Amino acid sequence: MDDLTVEKIEQSRRDRKRSHSLLAGKSRSYPHFLELEKAAFAPGELTSKVKELMALSISIVTRCEPCMEWHVEQAVLSGASEAEIYEAIDVATEMGGGPAVAYARFALRSYEYFLDRQRTSGPHLREAASD
Amino acid sequence: MDDLTVEKIEQSRRDRKRSHSLLAGKSRSYPHFLELEKAAFAPGELTSKVKELMALSISIVTRCEPCMEWHVEQAVLSGASEAEIYEAIDVATEMGGGPAVAYARFALRSYEYFLDRQRTSGPHLREAASD
Amino acid sequence: MDDLTVEKIEQSRRDRKRSHSLLAGKSRSYPHFLELEKAAFAPGELTSKVKELMALSISIVTRCEPCMEWHVEQAVLSGASEAEIYEAIDVATEMGGGPAVAYARFALRSYEYFLDRQRTSGPHLREAASD
Amino acid sequence: MDDLTVEKIEQSRRDRKRSHSLLAGKSRSYPHFLELEKAAFAPGELTSKVKELMALSISIVTRCEPCMEWHVEQAVLSGASEAEIYEAIDVATEMGGGPAVAYARFALRSYEYFLDRQRTSGPHLREAASD
Amino acid sequence: MDDLTVEKIEQSRRDRKRSHSLLAGKSRSYPHFLELEKAAFAPGELTSKVKELMALSISIVTRCEPCMEWHVEQAVLSGASEAEIYEAIDVATEMGGGPAVAYARFALRSYEYFLDRQRTSGPHLREAASD
Amino acid sequence: MDDLTVEKIEQSRRDRKRSHSLLAGKSRSYPHFLELEKAAFAPGELTSKVKELMALSISIVTRCEPCMEWHVEQAVLSGASEAEIYEAIDVATEMGGGPAVAYARFALRSYEYFLDRQRTSGPHLREAASD
Repeated sequence: MDDLTVEKIEQSRRDRKRSHSLLAGKSRSYPHFLELEKAAFAPGELTSKVKELMALSISIVTRCEPCMEWHVEQAVLSGASEAEIYEAIDVATEMGGGPAVAYARFALRSYEYFLDRQRTSGPHLREAASD
Repeated sequence: MDDLTVEKIEQSRRDRKRSHSLLAGKSRSYPHFLELEKAAFAPGELTSKVKELMALSISIVTRCEPCMEWHVEQAVLSGASEAEIYEAIDVATEMGGGPAVAYARFALRSYEYFLDRQRTSGPHLREAASD
Repeated sequence: MDDLTVEKIEQSRRDRKRSHSLLAGKSRSYPHFLELEKAAFAPGELTSKVKELMALSISIVTRCEPCMEWHVEQAVLSGASEAEIYEAIDVATEMGGGPAVAYARFALRSYEYFLDRQRTSGPHLREAASD
Repeated sequence: MDDLTVEKIEQSRRDRKRSHSLLAGKSRSYPHFLELEKAAFAPGELTSKVKELMALSISIVTRCEPCMEWHVEQAVLSGASEAEIYEAIDVATEMGGGPAVAYARFALRSYEYFLDRQRTSGPHLREAASD
Repeated sequence: MDDLTVEKIEQSRRDRKRSHSLLAGKSRSYPHFLELEKAAFAPGELTSKVKELMALSISIVTRCEPCMEWHVEQAVLSGASEAEIYEAIDVATEMGGGPAVAYARFALRSYEYFLDRQRTSGPHLREAASD
Repeated sequence: MDDLTVEKIEQSRRDRKRSHSLLAGKSRSYPHFLELEKAAFAPGELTSKVKELMALSISIVTRCEPCMEWHVEQAVLSGASEAEIYEAIDVATEMGGGPAVAYARFALRSYEYFLDRQRTSGPHLREAASD
């Protein structure tokens, strides 16, 4: 509410949905991107949980907030624990230094936001649609 | 309004104007940057439209929101069509993966914002001043 | 107030404090990061002021807003003048082009915010805790 | 020969071919990436030439040498002139500053390499396979 | 030998050792960086293998060749299989697009180099010293 | 000689000269870039030495090898000491983590190369022409 970070997270979720429809209708590359995404995060030798934590650590190092917000949710929906989130942040810190620490804040706020939301509205399934 | 993305776009426009005056008065490099910018986007073998779409695709891949907001407007003012905007996003998606898709959302919201603004206040000319 | 950039700066300050406690309690890498940070910015052959200006210029080129907001404050608390801030922006502009100019706006707004705050609440000492 | 840049370009071409076979056989995401790439660079409202020049400018700003080497060749095979290559470098310079100028050197060497190669071995068709 | 990529890998290994001694003797931040690194990659809720694969995927997306060369070796020494390496590349591809595919080539060459080396000189233990 | 890093440094120097002539003749943005560069590094409230060290730290964090090779030389020609070079690396390490440590190796090799060259061929003046 009076917290801009929560507003940012919620706006990011709305903009993702909105753009998803637009891109699905008008972009030629988007359908292939969605296939690529599905293939990349499907369970294989590595679980989807590990892959989502990997994407989270990349998102922190590359300072991509909408990516963090998405992948932290997907990581939790795939079974990631709090300790595992912090360890993904450890690796991101080693690979990104101070800016990674600074962006980990948004990842942590997104994590907290998602847990709150789960508490009030019940568990969710992993959704389709891109980071 | 109650939409943070629109607020962000409008704040970006205000901050650009404000900093333009400050930098014009106090920075030694800024005047040369403005010359460089003018030279880079002037029509040559490639039209200004193509150059602005190029800058838009770079802005998406490098995740620069104020750059997107500026270059999407300049692209439209230079005659870019909706389809061309989407094709610039296609190239950015190939060159930037998921984070490019995530930031293309802001480019699309900026595009929409600019069209709305044009509808209510009449056509504009390409302005001077940097991305 | 009705200015989103100021809100963003203040939110960034709140999120830094909040995450600092969380990371101090739960992250294994964070204590070492804090030591690394202290060593990197301690005065040596280069003054802390120069090191903070250096970090500011890196923050602008890498488009890290929370980093800018932090290092601009640290630079001023270490004695940086307005002219020195502008010269750090000059170097960032040379090394980052248009996107650096675009993100320098946030650095300038943070600078202005910090001066205002100093005027109303008296001088501050350099705080501990990361960018 | 005694020129490391030419060696680098030729090694990049060999490594592309080699990895293409490996990834085609063992990666799940790669086939979708190839589809995405094909969709992104297919002629639409923008020609393939413009799209390749766009990718070239992104490659320069993001400092991706194998990408430059590939997209400069594809741009030429799609009909790009020398002047158009230089204008893509202009836009990259505005969007990337000094590092873009520094990496444009590799783009120019790749351009020269490709023209030489065309002169000695006759014209080529645009090949399949990724940047 | 006549392969520049192998030369590059071997030079990277020599330069790592050489700089390690220099930095250990002359840098104030380096000892803390080494502590941070140790903490980040120590087994916790996530195994060292997963953390190294995570670092590998970050290295590919951020186009850091010496990082790839190091983390691919550490991943294998921590027990990563070929399939797991390819899945880390899948995630990097989704998060980095074409440039990630282009840099994955270096990761694959490094992987191959390391396997060859292991075959000829026997198994190695994970070494200390940074990426 | 049999050291690829030295070859890389020398090739970078040759390619800089070569591209300088080409860009000076054929690029519209380049002359303005050179003016911008001159303004950015001219002594002001900060010395050229500090500005070059700043650019060096940015080059390390952004992983730009030709930039490092250039700015380390300019830093030394402006009077930077070994200790100051290491402190610029400290700041880069804090701002860039492991990849900054990895690329600092190239900065250190370039520093060593330049000192060797100075020893054998006598002192040089700061040259014109870009990073």
